[in-house]
Amino acid sequence: MDLPARLALRLELEALYAEYAACLDDDELERWPEFFATDCRYEIIPRENFDRGLPLAVMRCESRAMLIDRVAALRRSSVYAPRALRHLISGVRITAVEGDSVSAQATYTIVQTPLDEEPAIFNVGRYLDRLVRDAGALKFVERLCVYDSVLVPGSLIFPI
Amino acid sequence: MDLPARLALRLELEALYAEYAACLDDDELERWPEFFATDCRYEIIPRENFDRGLPLAVMRCESRAMLIDRVAALRRSSVYAPRALRHLISGVRITAVEGDSVSAQATYTIVQTPLDEEPAIFNVGRYLDRLVRDAGALKFVERLCVYDSVLVPGSLIFPI
Amino acid sequence: MDLPARLALRLELEALYAEYAACLDDDELERWPEFFATDCRYEIIPRENFDRGLPLAVMRCESRAMLIDRVAALRRSSVYAPRALRHLISGVRITAVEGDSVSAQATYTIVQTPLDEEPAIFNVGRYLDRLVRDAGALKFVERLCVYDSVLVPGSLIFPI
Repeated sequence: MDLPARLALRLELEALYAEYAACLDDDELERWPEFFATDCRYEIIPRENFDRGLPLAVMRCESRAMLIDRVAALRRSSVYAPRALRHLISGVRITAVEGDSVSAQATYTIVQTPLDEEPAIFNVGRYLDRLVRDAGALKFVERLCVYDSVLVPGSLIFPI
Repeated sequence: MDLPARLALRLELEALYAEYAACLDDDELERWPEFFATDCRYEIIPRENFDRGLPLAVMRCESRAMLIDRVAALRRSSVYAPRALRHLISGVRITAVEGDSVSAQATYTIVQTPLDEEPAIFNVGRYLDRLVRDAGALKFVERLCVYDSVLVPGSLIFPI
Repeated sequence: MDLPARLALRLELEALYAEYAACLDDDELERWPEFFATDCRYEIIPRENFDRGLPLAVMRCESRAMLIDRVAALRRSSVYAPRALRHLISGVRITAVEGDSVSAQATYTIVQTPLDEEPAIFNVGRYLDRLVRDAGALKFVERLCVYDSVLVPGSLIFPI
């Protein structure tokens, strides 16, 4: 891959991650499944389980249809307290490029501002991603969100 | 807009935002108005007011001259406690390009370290920007800082 | 330096910083000295000392060999509690380019998640860097980590 192509790919990924973060932060959850391929895997996993190879995930979806179901379920529930979320994505790294497939990693940090409280870090961890190009646009075939906390945050019912 | 031009614009914006953050973090407030066009609008607005279309802003300046006045007033006052600030800017998104005018958004997170205390998040929110090219350099025609907290932080007298 | 070259350099720096952060966050400390030139200077300095020109550093290494010793010493010690670290690097700025030498600055924020605790900001500050190109790759000739806290965090024995 020549330099301009790799630069372009890096910038394309950064722009995609920024759009993904904005989708969640703006509470436009209905658009969230569109970032994924039809056949895909999305998981939220505590780091300790991931490092030990344990399959236990806090959230697991195995197709775009399941992501859509997940959003519908979230919209029906109203157990969560009002709060604002911000996903800060940093440290984007392209770890492999093979044909139309890209593997990448990034660090995410979610800052939460509950109503009438100060902002604080809610969750931090890594995205482990595999993407494919579909009709020009990169889509997630796999997004594993491996978070640092051992504790399962009580309100970790939202996508990361 | 062809790919190289869009890539170049994205990088130019990221570099500009990094310079803006460094200006504030290095306490070089006198340089801060230079990031703006002569005719400009700068506001700090709680998210709730912004979402409801309420005009109430915590800070509002309607020209570069007002920004300069603001800095002068800040320098005269000495009510604030010594502390260090860091503006982390992430998630830059170009939302529109029309001729010499660029609309963009980004997430900001301000980390504050008061003297003799641990660092903590002071304020988090979005920049909603409109910029124009003036003599080669991009300048803010509009920068709205929409912060997530409902509370007005007592010390929110500094530019964001 | 023409525009494409400067864009390429900015992206190269961002990729390098992301690799550096991942090396520390993945606890691959043995790879850490490889980011530096054989003759190099690495220091962690409280902001107040740096601003006053005081030479007192919390950590100082004056060659790659000293960095390697440092890592070995860290691996022998076992005083530190288990925890996960994330280095968020933002606001990359190229401040000078002279031949093969690049001066740059960036903001770092370290988020720490101790076992069984919530994540919180551990340390925040600036990287003041000078790099040279060696066999194609940029290496740190100087990396000063100037942190905002006046307090010396008890556990600041790890590289930043």
